[in-house]
Amino acid sequence: MRVLILGGDGYLGWPTAMNFAAAGHEVCVVDNYLRRQIAEATDSEALIATPSLSERARVFHAVSGHTIKVHIADLADPGVMFDIVREFGPETIIHYAEQPSAPYSMRGFREARETFNNNLNVTFNCIHAVKDIVPDCHIVKLGTMGEYGTPNIDIEEGWLEVEHKGRKDTFLFPRAAGSLYHTTKVMDTDLLWFYVRTFGLRVTDLMQGPVYGLSTDEADLDPRLCPNFHYDDIFGTLVNRFLVQAVAGIPLTVYGAGGQIRGYLNLRDTLQCVGLAASNPAKRGELRIFNQLTETFSVNQAADRIKKVGDEMGLNVTIKSIPNPRKEKENHYYNPAHSGLMELGLKPHYMTDDVITAMLKRVMENKDRIVAGRIMPRVKWS
Amino acid sequence: MRVLILGGDGYLGWPTAMNFAAAGHEVCVVDNYLRRQIAEATDSEALIATPSLSERARVFHAVSGHTIKVHIADLADPGVMFDIVREFGPETIIHYAEQPSAPYSMRGFREARETFNNNLNVTFNCIHAVKDIVPDCHIVKLGTMGEYGTPNIDIEEGWLEVEHKGRKDTFLFPRAAGSLYHTTKVMDTDLLWFYVRTFGLRVTDLMQGPVYGLSTDEADLDPRLCPNFHYDDIFGTLVNRFLVQAVAGIPLTVYGAGGQIRGYLNLRDTLQCVGLAASNPAKRGELRIFNQLTETFSVNQAADRIKKVGDEMGLNVTIKSIPNPRKEKENHYYNPAHSGLMELGLKPHYMTDDVITAMLKRVMENKDRIVAGRIMPRVKWS
Repeated sequence: MRVLILGGDGYLGWPTAMNFAAAGHEVCVVDNYLRRQIAEATDSEALIATPSLSERARVFHAVSGHTIKVHIADLADPGVMFDIVREFGPETIIHYAEQPSAPYSMRGFREARETFNNNLNVTFNCIHAVKDIVPDCHIVKLGTMGEYGTPNIDIEEGWLEVEHKGRKDTFLFPRAAGSLYHTTKVMDTDLLWFYVRTFGLRVTDLMQGPVYGLSTDEADLDPRLCPNFHYDDIFGTLVNRFLVQAVAGIPLTVYGAGGQIRGYLNLRDTLQCVGLAASNPAKRGELRIFNQLTETFSVNQAADRIKKVGDEMGLNVTIKSIPNPRKEKENHYYNPAHSGLMELGLKPHYMTDDVITAMLKRVMENKDRIVAGRIMPRVKWS
Repeated sequence: MRVLILGGDGYLGWPTAMNFAAAGHEVCVVDNYLRRQIAEATDSEALIATPSLSERARVFHAVSGHTIKVHIADLADPGVMFDIVREFGPETIIHYAEQPSAPYSMRGFREARETFNNNLNVTFNCIHAVKDIVPDCHIVKLGTMGEYGTPNIDIEEGWLEVEHKGRKDTFLFPRAAGSLYHTTKVMDTDLLWFYVRTFGLRVTDLMQGPVYGLSTDEADLDPRLCPNFHYDDIFGTLVNRFLVQAVAGIPLTVYGAGGQIRGYLNLRDTLQCVGLAASNPAKRGELRIFNQLTETFSVNQAADRIKKVGDEMGLNVTIKSIPNPRKEKENHYYNPAHSGLMELGLKPHYMTDDVITAMLKRVMENKDRIVAGRIMPRVKWS
């Protein structure tokens, strides 16, 4: 299968590229290094420096024999998108090419505009390139569980049957996201749904929860193949940040009451989910939506679990609540369905004590690289 | 009240500007002439040529004594938006500044991209300019009934209370639009709702049906003040197109089965609705949504009503079904609520025989200007 990965330099894009190549697929990655530029500009660089995408592809080829084709180019430019799609002729596109930081998108007008235009234009160009050049290509789009927000009803997988005044219809599950970044993904969903039903595109939209971890079969082959492990307030996801705080002897900073519940998954399960979606494509004219998470826990529960394991390893972990820089409910109902990917064959890697121990050990090996000033929130929602 | 009208050169923007000025408000209009350029490029010019916006403002001042300030500038450029908002300090912004043609948005990639970037960037810039400069300003945004599509349940005014598995919540009413143009308005709504609930903006979103007519108190003062009356396949709305076909002796072209029902309103009622919304502003942190229509009828019913009146005037009107260039349901349930604006005081001007007669007479005075080649659909959805 020819697999084109948009945003192939990212925390998820790069491990996904290696994973598809290792499975024998023909893989091409494209990235504009926007995340690298933002990380440098905001002093938010990853714990372990990662070589350029071309260099990582060379290292991966040397250790595995597999080839990954690399383009450094801006997919928000339609000429770039159309040329690459025409040249490579993908059967599957995995679309990760979005500015992924909620705090960055809320930092100021310039950052908001950059996020807005990058994310929407890449999705728009991708849709049109597929429609016009490879209409049978399956688009696997990374959405986010954050699109749904925290409604007071069970979160179904993408769709909701509504009965109203004695009549029924099925609609996209209501969305109400908590940042501009998340809102751009809501808007992506609207756009994909319009083009799917109007032109018969085939799309899988993966509503993913926050991912944690830094180990995959391919990444573990060589330290230079490590995913970008961010622990800063801009790109760091909750669990990864807590792991670094635990190792650095900094209290785990809980935003507000800590009752915020989200659905999480291990990086290894992101690879499984994207692989399962790609090998079981959506039908023509289908917008198939999966909720991509394996377990739910609150911020307080995450902190407690990491503290327990960290303490057993002698880290003496403390937890501290700080004022919430975000605007979000700190205590709420949360019950998302997530059976679709299990039915396709997902075998979850839960966040067990062993998994936490292994992650803490990897971070401890890199303890000297931790920059404490990158951890506390620097962006407030209002 | 200082009223800033974005898209003040349009079919609705210009009569709105005159109406607010005549009511004693301080009015500033901005337009980038995008519709004029598209009309020229696609041979879709209005029945009655309209002078430039500056010229229209001069004529209006001469006949009424009222002043309308004019900027010809591109609001998709954030510098333009921020400068104008800073300089004028609006208390109300009426936002019409979107590429409004569904067929144009579906014509090809270039036209789709132009629509997408213009519409979303103007809304984005407007939101940020208000948030940063005049946070108490009331944004009156023109949405469209087309955002909802044709669901199988009653269409409520913007919001829907959902009961699901024994729990309840209220969400934006589900949206599923029929063109890229309409989808950009769905995306506008998502964006407005995010910024309203995060930053306490005050927004009224008017979900307007297709408008017809060419007479308003101010427009009738001088023929040069006439709204842009389009009858072409690009900008012409259904009723206006049928009026011109009836006068030109061309069959009224019904797309497909003609059972498509929409909610319509008279141009005079658009002015009333926008005026009522502006003088009864939404609260801080409120996204208030009204369905802006006064009556519903199907395409066949519209054709029959115009044929009946036209025949009485001796026009010998015929009706002909042609293949539907759009992708839409041709027979469907349609029951939209629209009591909110009535409760604020809207006094509807329904499409009576007298109203149709008056419109046909105005078109007959301009019969020589009709270009028949502009009427049949030139854009197909797929």
